[in-house]
Amino acid sequence: MKNPIITMLTDFGTKDHYVSAMKGVILSINPKCLLIDISHEVRKQDVREGAFILGNAFSYFPKGTIHLAVIDPGVGSERKPILIRTENYFFIGPDNGLFTIAAMKDRVRKVIQLTNKRYFLSNISSTFHGRDIFAPVAGYLSLGIKPDVFGKEIGKWVKLDFSEPNIKGDKLLGKIIHIDSFGNLISNIDQERFLKFINAHSFSIKIKNRKVSHIKRGYWEGRDKELIALFGSGGYLEIAVKDGSAKSILNAKKGDSIIVERGRA
Amino acid sequence: MKNPIITMLTDFGTKDHYVSAMKGVILSINPKCLLIDISHEVRKQDVREGAFILGNAFSYFPKGTIHLAVIDPGVGSERKPILIRTENYFFIGPDNGLFTIAAMKDRVRKVIQLTNKRYFLSNISSTFHGRDIFAPVAGYLSLGIKPDVFGKEIGKWVKLDFSEPNIKGDKLLGKIIHIDSFGNLISNIDQERFLKFINAHSFSIKIKNRKVSHIKRGYWEGRDKELIALFGSGGYLEIAVKDGSAKSILNAKKGDSIIVERGRA
Amino acid sequence: MKNPIITMLTDFGTKDHYVSAMKGVILSINPKCLLIDISHEVRKQDVREGAFILGNAFSYFPKGTIHLAVIDPGVGSERKPILIRTENYFFIGPDNGLFTIAAMKDRVRKVIQLTNKRYFLSNISSTFHGRDIFAPVAGYLSLGIKPDVFGKEIGKWVKLDFSEPNIKGDKLLGKIIHIDSFGNLISNIDQERFLKFINAHSFSIKIKNRKVSHIKRGYWEGRDKELIALFGSGGYLEIAVKDGSAKSILNAKKGDSIIVERGRA
Repeated sequence: MKNPIITMLTDFGTKDHYVSAMKGVILSINPKCLLIDISHEVRKQDVREGAFILGNAFSYFPKGTIHLAVIDPGVGSERKPILIRTENYFFIGPDNGLFTIAAMKDRVRKVIQLTNKRYFLSNISSTFHGRDIFAPVAGYLSLGIKPDVFGKEIGKWVKLDFSEPNIKGDKLLGKIIHIDSFGNLISNIDQERFLKFINAHSFSIKIKNRKVSHIKRGYWEGRDKELIALFGSGGYLEIAVKDGSAKSILNAKKGDSIIVERGRA
Repeated sequence: MKNPIITMLTDFGTKDHYVSAMKGVILSINPKCLLIDISHEVRKQDVREGAFILGNAFSYFPKGTIHLAVIDPGVGSERKPILIRTENYFFIGPDNGLFTIAAMKDRVRKVIQLTNKRYFLSNISSTFHGRDIFAPVAGYLSLGIKPDVFGKEIGKWVKLDFSEPNIKGDKLLGKIIHIDSFGNLISNIDQERFLKFINAHSFSIKIKNRKVSHIKRGYWEGRDKELIALFGSGGYLEIAVKDGSAKSILNAKKGDSIIVERGRA
Repeated sequence: MKNPIITMLTDFGTKDHYVSAMKGVILSINPKCLLIDISHEVRKQDVREGAFILGNAFSYFPKGTIHLAVIDPGVGSERKPILIRTENYFFIGPDNGLFTIAAMKDRVRKVIQLTNKRYFLSNISSTFHGRDIFAPVAGYLSLGIKPDVFGKEIGKWVKLDFSEPNIKGDKLLGKIIHIDSFGNLISNIDQERFLKFINAHSFSIKIKNRKVSHIKRGYWEGRDKELIALFGSGGYLEIAVKDGSAKSILNAKKGDSIIVERGRA
C-alpha cells in the first residue's frame, strides 16, 4: 500500500518548535505518513498569500494527498475548523479563505466542520489548533477514517475575493498578486485572457511608470538588468529582470497595478 | 515494522551542506529512517535556545523516537559526546546542557558517553562531530543496537540552570525565556504557578514599563495592536500583540523581566 | 527493496511553491521516493556556490542516490538539460557547470542530454524546467528506467574553472571560496597541499591585513573573538573566530585572497 502524503503550509517559520510539534502529532497517529513541507514562510497571518502558494502547489501532488494548512489569525475564536473534500484532494485548516484558490480549482465535493473531539488532542489550547486539532485530524484521515466521521457537513465556507482583471476600453487593468523570492512580480492576468484581449494587436505593458512592449520566452532573453515581461510557470503575466530583482528595481509591492494597453491593429 | 524516526535540531542553518551531510550519513547506515527537522535555525551556539525548542517539541513524537541535537560550541574539546535514554526517547549530542529540559521532563534512565569508535565515521574531524559521531550513532541506534554498546555509562551529565520565577511578597518575578517568530514573548511563569500565586485576587502584569491586567483566551481577543497576556500553547504566560509583534512594540529581548503583581482580595 | 533517495538543491528559497511543486511531481511518478533537501538557499543564480555545496554533501549519501540540482539562470535557452552517471551517483539538472565539483570527484561514466519528452511533463514552461523536466526525469529514473532511455549520450559537458591555489616562491596564494552561515571563511587550500608546501617550516597566514601563525585543532581552542585558522570538516584551510563571525570581523567576502607564507627552516 502506498504511504499517505500530508503536505503542510503555515506561517510559523522553521525556527520554533511549532511545525515539528505538528509533525510529531501526525506521526504519533500514523507513522507511515510522508510529510512534505509546502511552505512555512508565508507572511505572518497573510491568508491571501497562503492561498496563492497553496493554489500553485497542491495540484502537483498525487490524488488523495492531504493538504494541511494553518494560517490562522482567528485561532481560538468562532472561526470554524474545516475539512474540504475536493475532486482529488483533502484540505484541512481554518475556515478563513485559505483554501479559496485550491479548493475551487479542484471542485469542492463536501465541506465538514470539525467537531468530533475524539480526533483532537485531549487538551486543546486556544492558541495552537494546528497542533491540537488540525494535525491529529490529518493523521486520522490518513489512516482511512471517512471525512463524515470528523464532524458535520456544512453548506457555506469562507471564500476570499481574489480580484480579477478588468477591461476598460483599450486597457486591461490587472494587479500584482505575488512577488517571489527572485523578485519576480506575478500578476493576476493569465495568458488566455491576455491573448484574447490583445487579439493580435500591438500592446504595451505599464507598471510603476515603466513600459514593456514585448513578451519574452524566458528570463535568459533579457539583456542585463532589462525589465522584461513573460508568462511564468503558473501561466500568469510576470514582470522580471534578468539577473536581478524586478521588485527592487521598481520598488514594487503586492497590489501594485499593471496595465496592458492595446494598440491599433 | 515501523520505520524509526530521527529528529534533528541544530544551529547550522539550511543553506550550507552541514545538515544534509548528516542526513546522508544516517541514510547510508539505515535507509529506512524517517528524518524530521525540528529546527536548524537556533541562534548560533545558543545552547539554551536549543534546549527550549527541543523541550517543547520532543514529547509530541512517538515513543522510541531518536532526538539528535547538535549545538556544539565545544566541538573537538573535552566535552563529552553522549546518548541519553529517557523513559520514552533517546537523545544524542554533546554533553553541554542541550538536553536539560527535555531529558528531565521525560525522566532519565541512563546516560552513555559515546566512546566506541566502531560506530563513528572512520575519519573524525575536530569541527563536525554532528556528521562524524552523532549522526552515525543515531543511524546505528535506529538499527536496534543497544545503547550500552556505544560506550560507557556515566553518572553525571551537564544540566543548565534554567531560572525559575521567584516570589517576593506580592510579586511573582519571572523572565522572558523565548521570543518566537511572531514576536510573542514567552515567560517562565507557567499557568499552575500563576493561578496558585494569584489565588483569585486581582492582578497586573508588568513588562517594560507597560501594564496588562487581564488574561485573554486567544490572540483574537485583543484589539488591533493591543498588548495582551495569555497562556500560550506550551502553558506559559505569554505577552503578545494582536496582528503585530510584541517584541518590536516593546523592544523586548530574552532575559527581560516580567512581574505579576497581586492586588488585595 | 530500499526506497530510492532523491536529494534536491536549488536557489528557489522555501517560501514559494516552486520546491514543493517539484516534490509533488516526483511523488506523483514514484510515491516511494525519499526526498532530502540539500539546500534551497543557494544565492540566487550562483551556480558556483551551488556546485560547492553539492560537492560537499553528495558523497555522504548512499550509493545510487539521485542528486537533483536546479540553479538555472539559462532556463529555456539553448543550455542543455542533462543526466550524469558517475561511479556511485546520478546527477540531474542544467548543463551549466553546477555538477563540476561533485561529478569530477566521483568520476563521470556517462552524460546524457535529456531529449525524450515522454519523461517530461506534458506542458513544458520556458521558466521552470525544475518542475517540468528535471523533477519528472528524476522520478522516472528512481523507478529504475535506464539513463540511456532519457536521451542521447554526449561527449562534452560544462565544467567551471574553480581556481586552484598557486605557489609563488615562499607564498601559497589561495582564495576564499565559501563563507558558511557561522561566518567561517573556507579557502581552496586543502590540508595535503598546505602540509606539503610548509614542509615543516614555520608559517604565517595572511588575510585582509591580519596574520595568523598557528593552526588550531578546533574552534574551542581560540580565545574569545580571536581570529584562528584550522582545517575544517571538508579538509580545507578555514579562518574562524571563536564565538563570533570571521566574515563580520574581517568584512570578508568570497574571492578574497588568503596567503600562506613560509618561513625559514
